[in-house]
Amino acid sequence: MDEVKVIEIKKSVFADNALDADALRRELKEKGVFLLNLMSSPGSGKTTTLIRTINLLKDKIRLAVMEADIDSDVDAVKIREATGVESIQLHTGGMCHLDAEMTRQGLDNVPLDALDLVILENVGNLVCPAEFDTGSCCNAMILSVPEGDDKPLKYPLMFSVCDVVLINKTDVLPYFDFDLERCERYVHMRNPKARVIPICAKTGEGVEVFAEWLLGEVRQWKQ
Amino acid sequence: MDEVKVIEIKKSVFADNALDADALRRELKEKGVFLLNLMSSPGSGKTTTLIRTINLLKDKIRLAVMEADIDSDVDAVKIREATGVESIQLHTGGMCHLDAEMTRQGLDNVPLDALDLVILENVGNLVCPAEFDTGSCCNAMILSVPEGDDKPLKYPLMFSVCDVVLINKTDVLPYFDFDLERCERYVHMRNPKARVIPICAKTGEGVEVFAEWLLGEVRQWKQ
Repeated sequence: MDEVKVIEIKKSVFADNALDADALRRELKEKGVFLLNLMSSPGSGKTTTLIRTINLLKDKIRLAVMEADIDSDVDAVKIREATGVESIQLHTGGMCHLDAEMTRQGLDNVPLDALDLVILENVGNLVCPAEFDTGSCCNAMILSVPEGDDKPLKYPLMFSVCDVVLINKTDVLPYFDFDLERCERYVHMRNPKARVIPICAKTGEGVEVFAEWLLGEVRQWKQ
Repeated sequence: MDEVKVIEIKKSVFADNALDADALRRELKEKGVFLLNLMSSPGSGKTTTLIRTINLLKDKIRLAVMEADIDSDVDAVKIREATGVESIQLHTGGMCHLDAEMTRQGLDNVPLDALDLVILENVGNLVCPAEFDTGSCCNAMILSVPEGDDKPLKYPLMFSVCDVVLINKTDVLPYFDFDLERCERYVHMRNPKARVIPICAKTGEGVEVFAEWLLGEVRQWKQ
């Protein structure tokens, strides 16, 4: 009995969130705003990658950033200072992920009518954020070289829900046992359609490929 | 009303787990078995650190390892092959952490009466595992240099519940903007008593300091 009850509670939570997420996506489509959900482990380079990406895009489209964090506002301040774009911090109060309702609370605080793209930097975690649909139009994740090329084997759900996987910190490839081809093969075991883009956020190498792809997605969403 | 209900559910979950954890710790004390809970982000080097540590300790004390993972048994196989010690894999079925009851289910599968030390490698995650007392006698965590020295600011709870913080991958310090002293200062903001030990699991440097500390803790626990 206990087990069935637990499963029901779980299902009900997920079902509600799936409905909330779908409703949020419909609203975003109507407004012509593209929401990108960016996920990764702590320290994989989400903020640095975002700064590079924003600086490539900010003269082409109107965008804002929502930085989710358990505590601190380090990232939102860093992004605003480095790019000049609107950046707000979402404190999750210890929560390890964002769901659609929490994402909506964030979106209520950005000027949606004046935007083409909102980037949500999710909490640094390869497990829980993958389980909750935020209502985003697309999921992207960053795997950094020092984390190891076996991560798609260990965190299958994260890799199966992502449309794009950025392999970051390629500048330190010589110092780590990380095989790009093997990693790409593992990613495609989880999600054959996932696009894999090697980048180095520190030097900027490859980030323009991601920025071009994102620009294409935003334009398609607005049609 | 809704908010109060949610809080009650949370409290009740945590209260039960705290009781379970305390009961488990008492049993471990009676049996003279020390349980170490090792946490970190994905890819910070938990398994490599464990292999080095076990090889330094296995002729001095009797030990076993429990590897928690969402999926896969890569780590348990790796540890058994590299050290020869008993190593079992705990599949969490998508769960992002272990609580005391889950830890107990693992311990039921190792020969506790013939052991001095059990090391639990928790799920790779800096958020959820910090929220659940596993019943361990001590919490340790690994922060690796590529993750950045600001992590104690961003994941406060993890650093406040850990007695020992291992700073791993010191061999790549020249390639990253990571300041050991600043990191130690941040760790001590969260937990003034935490011991910080720089190591390089790849070369073995510093691991003997951690192994000696752990040996001392195990011997004290058995008194």
